[in-house]
Amino acid sequence: MNKIIVVGAVAGGATVASQIRRLDSESEIVVYEKDRDMSFANCGLPYYLGEVVEDRDLMLSATPEQFYDKKNITVKTYHEAIALNDAHKTITIKNHQTGETFEDQYDTLILSPGCRARHLPIQSDRVFTLRNLVDTDEIENFIVNEKVQSALIVGAGYVSLEILENLFYRGIETTLIHRSDHINKSMDKDLNNVIFEELDKREIQYRLNEEIESITDRTVTFKSGHVEDYDIVITGVGIEPNSDWLKSSSLQLNEQGYVPVNEYFETNLEGVYAIGDVIETFYRHTKKPTSITLAWGAHRAASLIAENLVAKSSNEKSAFRGLLGTNIVRVFDYALGSVGISESELENYDVDVVEQTQKQHAGYYPNAEPITLRVYFEKSSRKILRACAVGKDGADKRIDILSTAIIGELTIDELRDIEIAYAPPFSSPKDIVNMIGYKAQSK
Amino acid sequence: MNKIIVVGAVAGGATVASQIRRLDSESEIVVYEKDRDMSFANCGLPYYLGEVVEDRDLMLSATPEQFYDKKNITVKTYHEAIALNDAHKTITIKNHQTGETFEDQYDTLILSPGCRARHLPIQSDRVFTLRNLVDTDEIENFIVNEKVQSALIVGAGYVSLEILENLFYRGIETTLIHRSDHINKSMDKDLNNVIFEELDKREIQYRLNEEIESITDRTVTFKSGHVEDYDIVITGVGIEPNSDWLKSSSLQLNEQGYVPVNEYFETNLEGVYAIGDVIETFYRHTKKPTSITLAWGAHRAASLIAENLVAKSSNEKSAFRGLLGTNIVRVFDYALGSVGISESELENYDVDVVEQTQKQHAGYYPNAEPITLRVYFEKSSRKILRACAVGKDGADKRIDILSTAIIGELTIDELRDIEIAYAPPFSSPKDIVNMIGYKAQSK
Repeated sequence: MNKIIVVGAVAGGATVASQIRRLDSESEIVVYEKDRDMSFANCGLPYYLGEVVEDRDLMLSATPEQFYDKKNITVKTYHEAIALNDAHKTITIKNHQTGETFEDQYDTLILSPGCRARHLPIQSDRVFTLRNLVDTDEIENFIVNEKVQSALIVGAGYVSLEILENLFYRGIETTLIHRSDHINKSMDKDLNNVIFEELDKREIQYRLNEEIESITDRTVTFKSGHVEDYDIVITGVGIEPNSDWLKSSSLQLNEQGYVPVNEYFETNLEGVYAIGDVIETFYRHTKKPTSITLAWGAHRAASLIAENLVAKSSNEKSAFRGLLGTNIVRVFDYALGSVGISESELENYDVDVVEQTQKQHAGYYPNAEPITLRVYFEKSSRKILRACAVGKDGADKRIDILSTAIIGELTIDELRDIEIAYAPPFSSPKDIVNMIGYKAQSK
Repeated sequence: MNKIIVVGAVAGGATVASQIRRLDSESEIVVYEKDRDMSFANCGLPYYLGEVVEDRDLMLSATPEQFYDKKNITVKTYHEAIALNDAHKTITIKNHQTGETFEDQYDTLILSPGCRARHLPIQSDRVFTLRNLVDTDEIENFIVNEKVQSALIVGAGYVSLEILENLFYRGIETTLIHRSDHINKSMDKDLNNVIFEELDKREIQYRLNEEIESITDRTVTFKSGHVEDYDIVITGVGIEPNSDWLKSSSLQLNEQGYVPVNEYFETNLEGVYAIGDVIETFYRHTKKPTSITLAWGAHRAASLIAENLVAKSSNEKSAFRGLLGTNIVRVFDYALGSVGISESELENYDVDVVEQTQKQHAGYYPNAEPITLRVYFEKSSRKILRACAVGKDGADKRIDILSTAIIGELTIDELRDIEIAYAPPFSSPKDIVNMIGYKAQSK
């Protein structure tokens, strides 16, 4: 009997185990998860903290008991993979509840260890990061027990911004600092200005190019010299792949510690796949390598790996076509989304750009609000490389249209041809996407 | 000097005149409009009637004075084209304000006469149709002067449904009848069920397979035998092309009276183009003929005609790629949209269908509401032929993604690959569009 071991039981791991079982009722499937919970809704955690989602059960989409009873999949939590012995096709597992260590043999190994939060080199029991439900429970308990009234958010990536908003709505006085002046890295820097306006409007303090120097009890001393007191400090200062334990194996890692995979999510080792935040994959449209730590790719990979594992021949195997990194975050009244290569990668191409600001629907219809859409394209091929959208309503729709357009290999000019459903509450006879195509004519 | 005559000054006519002037400062451009207003916002009229849009000025996007002053375009309202004398390249115009008739010579003629409302063969000063701003003003005056408290809406196309909703919100007791049991023809019949639920919820009376027999003052006798009193009757029982005046010419019309055009919007006559609701064009994906009376196509055609008129050679000319008929209507709390060939045209293909009902965004995030998405595809080619979406929120986004996917010639299977921007307020890691692609695997 084929034995499949999966390392990690969150988005990538739990989904791939589940997808394999759907197609393969025979193989033994064992999933090792180093932490307490499997399959938690990590994207929902800031909203649970903000009491926008009140039912904690909704943050757990499956338990080991359910996986065993319904899918005949063994999930062992508190079990950390600490070494890969690829020559013997085994992994070494440490059971954190008993302290014991053992080896387990695989025919197929699927690595989904994810990424971990970076930590600031600061000792303080008031400092937290939010990466999983354990973290969330700790923060929640601290807020309640310590009657937290003020919070410092360190780092302004999208999760930090979501936490900030949620704590603000919970009535906690929030302050944001970021170590550079480019917050929310997925967006073009200048398009993040609406975020600062939203903060100003609510009198939320923020400082850019700022870092923590030290913390003593409630007192935070900043590198700028500022000194202030906060009840809690939540840091979001980047993530790094959980791949240190793989360094003793023959598994290839890239410089940043991500696991390069091919279009079948195969690593350099026979029978060893990788999935989720830990992988280095490639952009769909440029074929260049990238690591995109978002949920969509993990789910897509899970389905493809499962399909390919049951494929009878290599002809039947389906290749992954790559990622676009389509992303979005809501920050107070605005949504900010982007798709394609990052702003910093644009310099590798001969690029032109078109931008349009226009109401999301007929101007006379109530609640008409401007969206700004910016689309970058390669001059010679007219190929779309990147797009950003910002607005109170309908930015998500335009980013998804652009994502679909890139997948369909439409040029910047063909955006004129996209027939968008029009009625006054939804768009315009010439939607903002069409206008980008028209404006590109003069370029 | 080249002389361009445009017949009709609403979406198609006003836009094409304007687009031509943008590229061609030389030619004389004269636009004849048989009615009082040019460039009115016809899609907004129901909302103006419902006082959702309060400022009547917003219903008029341009006046003849503005067109003359800003664009050097002559727009003559109350001037009806009554004959095309193609052998002499002239049209005969009747000035309805003076009663006089005259001929005008063109080098280029662009026909945009649109469609008119069908009228029931009933004499009553309480019966109205809504097709333009003149109609709207008449209805508005009648509602105010007669203190209208009850309305019968006859016909349940999308405009009628918008009128019904708007009169209901204005506090007028409304009743709807439709002569068949398939209301809102753009949608699959069964997917319109939410409309009946919305009507029931608000205790709005409706009867299907019902027609008016006669009207005497306020009393309406129905073919079913029902008799009831209404203050006003608003009919929306179909439209027909304004092309009777062209029958004496050599211009080719199809059986329904629409004007067939090629991919350059050229008619069978040299120098004569047609645009807007009056044309027979073709579906983008099936290349089969169709007439789609929606705004998007008129605007696209206007740009293409203008570009092609200034093109130096036929190599520089841009061909129209065809329409998909992407459409949407909001009916109370729901949006209903579709794209592609009509439900009745499906019988011409060897079709399979996939359907999915799923929340528009993360289930734990507030206001999660189901969307139903149904996609038809051709079995042999896996090509997407038609899609419908219904839901309280996000149906428009999914229809636009499907529209873009069809334009990008993605197959039903490639819907798995569409990378949709995910954060809890916007979608799911496997969006409903992806799920359609996954479900199609078993077909």
